[in-house]
Amino acid sequence: MVHTGKKVIIIGGVAGGASCAARLRRLDEKAQILMVERGPYVSYANCGLPYHIGGVIEKESALFVASEATFREQFDINVRTQCEAVGINSTKKTVDLKDLKTGTTTTEPYDTLVISPGAAPIRPKIPGFDLPGIFTLRTVPDTRAIKEWLARTDLHGMDTYTGCQTVNRPKRAVVIGGGFIGLEMVENLVHLGVEVTLIEKMNQVMAPIDPELALLIKCRIMKNGVHVELNDGVAGFQKAPNGELEVKTESGKTFPADIVISAIGVKPETELANMAGVTIGERGGIRVDDQMRTSNPDIFAVGDAVEVKDFVTGEWSLVPLAGPANRQGRIAAEVICGRNSRYRGTQGTSICLVFGAAVASTGVNEKVLLKKGDKDYEKIYLFPNSHAGYYPGAKMLAIKVLFRPSDGKLLGAQVMGDDGVTKRIDSFAMAIQKGFTIYDLEESELCYAPPYGSAKDPVNFAGMVAADIVRGDMPIVHWNALGNGLLLDVRNLPELAVESVPGAVHIPLPELRKRLGELPKDKEIFVFCRSGQRAYYATRILLQNGFKARNIAGGMLSRPLLLGKLG
Amino acid sequence: MVHTGKKVIIIGGVAGGASCAARLRRLDEKAQILMVERGPYVSYANCGLPYHIGGVIEKESALFVASEATFREQFDINVRTQCEAVGINSTKKTVDLKDLKTGTTTTEPYDTLVISPGAAPIRPKIPGFDLPGIFTLRTVPDTRAIKEWLARTDLHGMDTYTGCQTVNRPKRAVVIGGGFIGLEMVENLVHLGVEVTLIEKMNQVMAPIDPELALLIKCRIMKNGVHVELNDGVAGFQKAPNGELEVKTESGKTFPADIVISAIGVKPETELANMAGVTIGERGGIRVDDQMRTSNPDIFAVGDAVEVKDFVTGEWSLVPLAGPANRQGRIAAEVICGRNSRYRGTQGTSICLVFGAAVASTGVNEKVLLKKGDKDYEKIYLFPNSHAGYYPGAKMLAIKVLFRPSDGKLLGAQVMGDDGVTKRIDSFAMAIQKGFTIYDLEESELCYAPPYGSAKDPVNFAGMVAADIVRGDMPIVHWNALGNGLLLDVRNLPELAVESVPGAVHIPLPELRKRLGELPKDKEIFVFCRSGQRAYYATRILLQNGFKARNIAGGMLSRPLLLGKLG
Repeated sequence: MVHTGKKVIIIGGVAGGASCAARLRRLDEKAQILMVERGPYVSYANCGLPYHIGGVIEKESALFVASEATFREQFDINVRTQCEAVGINSTKKTVDLKDLKTGTTTTEPYDTLVISPGAAPIRPKIPGFDLPGIFTLRTVPDTRAIKEWLARTDLHGMDTYTGCQTVNRPKRAVVIGGGFIGLEMVENLVHLGVEVTLIEKMNQVMAPIDPELALLIKCRIMKNGVHVELNDGVAGFQKAPNGELEVKTESGKTFPADIVISAIGVKPETELANMAGVTIGERGGIRVDDQMRTSNPDIFAVGDAVEVKDFVTGEWSLVPLAGPANRQGRIAAEVICGRNSRYRGTQGTSICLVFGAAVASTGVNEKVLLKKGDKDYEKIYLFPNSHAGYYPGAKMLAIKVLFRPSDGKLLGAQVMGDDGVTKRIDSFAMAIQKGFTIYDLEESELCYAPPYGSAKDPVNFAGMVAADIVRGDMPIVHWNALGNGLLLDVRNLPELAVESVPGAVHIPLPELRKRLGELPKDKEIFVFCRSGQRAYYATRILLQNGFKARNIAGGMLSRPLLLGKLG
Repeated sequence: MVHTGKKVIIIGGVAGGASCAARLRRLDEKAQILMVERGPYVSYANCGLPYHIGGVIEKESALFVASEATFREQFDINVRTQCEAVGINSTKKTVDLKDLKTGTTTTEPYDTLVISPGAAPIRPKIPGFDLPGIFTLRTVPDTRAIKEWLARTDLHGMDTYTGCQTVNRPKRAVVIGGGFIGLEMVENLVHLGVEVTLIEKMNQVMAPIDPELALLIKCRIMKNGVHVELNDGVAGFQKAPNGELEVKTESGKTFPADIVISAIGVKPETELANMAGVTIGERGGIRVDDQMRTSNPDIFAVGDAVEVKDFVTGEWSLVPLAGPANRQGRIAAEVICGRNSRYRGTQGTSICLVFGAAVASTGVNEKVLLKKGDKDYEKIYLFPNSHAGYYPGAKMLAIKVLFRPSDGKLLGAQVMGDDGVTKRIDSFAMAIQKGFTIYDLEESELCYAPPYGSAKDPVNFAGMVAADIVRGDMPIVHWNALGNGLLLDVRNLPELAVESVPGAVHIPLPELRKRLGELPKDKEIFVFCRSGQRAYYATRILLQNGFKARNIAGGMLSRPLLLGKLG
C-alpha cells in the first residue's frame, strides 16, 4: 500500500528498535516505516541465546519472537535484514544503507530517524584474542558458531584409561567475566557436561550485587564443579605446542581450554551516533532526553546504546537490559507520534538464574553509594524463609536492603535464593518506583498462604527491621565494622557447638533478664544470634535496662559474608 | 521478676494477640503482660491446619510457631492457656478469667485490655449439624478430631468384588463451602485418597475472585476428581438406615458422606466486646479506630474479630487474614506504648493453592464495584505466559485487572496460574498500596530473565492494555455485553478449525489492510483473536481507517469465562 505519512527509519531491529517500529505502526497507520538490521534476524530473543547453547531451549526457531514476515504482514513495516547503515547525513536527513548480501548502497530519506544499535561485547586488546575457539555472544550467528564449535569432534586427547589418542568433543571451557552472560554461559556449559573455569577480574561475580552477597553466588557456582578465579584478568591466549588453546592470566596462571567465551561486558555502539553527529554522554552512551530524543531533534535513540538516568541517584548510567529497551522503544514511538510520553529512568531491576538460585537486585547497591561518598544510608541483612517454615519446601533467602535513615526511603534491595525471589524483588522494585519508605514496607499487604509466604512477608520484615533501626529501637553494627565492645552471643548452647565466635560472652536469650548483672554498663555490647531476631529481643532488653547495646545485623548468617570467609 | 509498669491483659493468643504481646514486650520491658488463650495452644499456625490434616505438614509440632515457654522465657509474658475470659468490667477495669482445667475463676485488673478473639466458623442452624462426623476447622483440637475421624476403621461397607462386608476408612467426604478453608480441605482430602463432593451455595467458589475467573478454579477442582455442586445449600444431615451419614441439599439432592467438613465462613467473635460494652460495627465486627482502639479508649481489639476499612473503597469490611491480624497486633502494642502508629486499612491481598494453581487477588473485585453501583471502572482480561514463552516451562496466567478510567487508578487484580502468580499479585498489591495508576504499571521495572519473566512483564502488559483503553487507542467490549455489531475474527485459519464463533466474519490480521473494503463503516465491528493482541492491532488499523471498532477483551480465551460456558 502507498503511505502518505512521515518517513521513519529505524536502525536496529531487536528489542528497542522492534518495539519502536511496532508501536509506531499501531499509533500511525500512515507512517512509512523502514526498519533495518545489520544481522540476519529481527526481534529475536537475545536473552535466550545462552540457554539455546546449553540445549535448555532446544529449537533455534523458538528464539524468533517475531519474524520479518510478521513485521511486513501484521505491521506493514518495510524490513531489511543484513542491511547496514553506513552513513547518516543529518542535514539532508538521509541514511546510506548497504545491502550486505549484494554490497549495494542506497540512500534513503527520513523525517525521523531512530537508532537502536545496542551494545557490543567488549573485545579486549590482548594477544591471541582472534584465535579460533574464542567467542563472544551477542547474536544468533554467534550462538550458531559456539554450538558448532561445541559439536565438533576433531579435538584429540589422551584417553586416561587406555592411554590411546581419542577423538573428543570440547570438554574444557574458560568463561571470562562473571556478569549475566558469563554466569549463564557457565551454567549452560556445565549443563552440557563441559568442565568450566570462570575468570573474573573483579573481586566478585555479578556486579549489580554487592560483594558480600556475591560470595554466595561464587559458592553456588563452585558447588557445581566450576573453578572460579577472582581478582585475575586475562593477559592473553596462545596455542600450546600440542595445538591446545591456552588462556594466560595476569597473575601468571595458565588454563587450557577447548573453548573460550569472553563476556567481560558490553559497550554502547556509538558509530551511528557519531555519523549523525549527536552528543555522546559521559558514560560513553548516546545522550538522550527523557523523550528519547538525541541532541538532534529529528533523531531518537533507544536501547542498550543510550545513557539513562539512574532512577534512584539521578546520575547518568548504562543499563543494558531488555525491559528498559522495550519501554524506550515504545516511548520514542509515542513521542514521534506527537504524544507527551516520558521515560522515567532506569532502576536496574535484574535477575539471573545461577544453578537453581535466582539472584536479583533493584535500585542502587552499596558500591554505588560508597563511590558517591553518600553516607546517609544503612544496610540490613535478612535470611528469612521463602514461605512459612512449617510448610514443606521452604528455602532460605538472603536479602540485603539499603535505605536512607534521614527519611526512611528505600534505596535498593538484593535477593538471592532457590524460591520466592521474584515475589520479593518485584515488590521492592514497585516500592522504589514510587519512593516507598521502610515504614511503607512494614505495612505492605502481600499475598500469604503457607505454600507461598508468611504472615509477615520478608518484605514486611525488611521494613520492620529497618524501621526499628531508624526509630532508634535497635541500633545495629556490622561484623566488619565492630568497634571496641563486648560480643554477646544469645543463642542456645547446642548452636555454639556448631560454630562459635572467639571471645564472645554467651548468655542464652531466655536467661538474659536474670543474668544482666554479668554484663558491663560502661561498654558497648554487640549482640548476635543466628539471624538477628533473638539478638534484637536481647538488644531491647539491654537498652531498656540501661546498657549500651547494638544488634549485629544478620547474625551468624551474615558473618562469613561480611568477613569474606565463605567458600 | 517484678514489673512496675502498666498492666496489659491480652485475650486471645494466636495471630493478632501473640503479635501484640511480643511487640509490647519489645517496646516496654516493664509492662505486666498477661496473655490468656481459651484453647490449649498459643501462636499456632492456623493457616497450616488443612495441610496437617492432608499429611503435607507431617508433624503436628511443626504447627507451633512459638510455645508458651517461649512467651514466658523470651518475652517474660505471663501466659495462661485453657483460660477463658468470662466477664469484663470496663468500669472497674477487671477481667474475670476462668481456668477451664480447674473451673476456678479469678479477677484480674488491667490498665489496658486487648481483645483478639478471632472469628469462629459459622455453624448453620440446620437439622443434624451436631451428628458425629460433621466438623468445622479452626483449632489444633479440631484438626486432631478430624484426623482421628479419618483414621478410624469402624466404617462398614460392601466390598464390590467379593460382596462381603469389609472394614474401611472414611472414603467419601462432603465439604460445604468453597472458600479458602473449604478449598484447602478439598485438596487435602483428595490428597488422602478420599472422594470429595464440594457443595457451595453461591454460583462460584472462592468469593474474593470474580465469578468468571472462579470458573477456572471450579474446572481445576473438577479435573482432580472432585464433584462440585454450585448454587445449592445444605438443608440438613441425617443418619441413613444403614448408619451412613447423609447430606441433604436445598435442591433435594442427597450425598452420603463418611465425613463432612463445614466451612461456610467465619463470624467475628464479639462476646468479649459485648461484655466490655464496646461498639459493634455495621458488619458485625468490633469497631476500632485506625489505632485499633475500640469505643472504650482503654480497650483495643485486633485480628479477625474487628472491622477494617477497605483500603480501596474506604468502606467497613471483615477481612479475616493472618497478615492484617499480625500488623494490627503490632500497631495496638505501639499505640499502647504511646506511639502514633496507624493502621492503613486492608486491601484483602490473598492467595490459595488449588491443585497446583495459585489463585490470588488484591484490592476490590468487580462484585464489590457492582454492589456499590460504581460505574467508573473498566476491566481487562489477560492470558500471558508466566515467563518468556521460548524458555521451557512457561505456563499461561489468567489475569483480570480493574481500573478507574476517569483517573487511571488501579482498583484491583486477580491472578490465577501454575507459576509466577506471587510475582504478579504482589506487584499489584504494592501498586494499590501507593495508588499507582495504570500508567505507572506501564513503566514498572520488574525483574526479567527468560526463566522468570518477560521483557514486558504481565504487570506492564496490564498497564499498557488499560492505558490503551483510557487513552482512547483501543475501545473494548466484553463477550457478555456485545451490542449490535459485526463480529470480526482476525485469527489464522487453522485456529478456526479448533474453535470458531458462529456468525463471525473471518479476515486474518495479515490480510486486513487489503480487505478493508469487505467491512461496513456504519456498523460497530467487534474484533477478536485468541487473547486480544492481534485484535488490538486490527482495531488500530480499523480505527485509523474510519471504522468503528472495539476489541473484545481477552479474545477467545475469555469467551467461555464470560459466557459461563466452561467446564
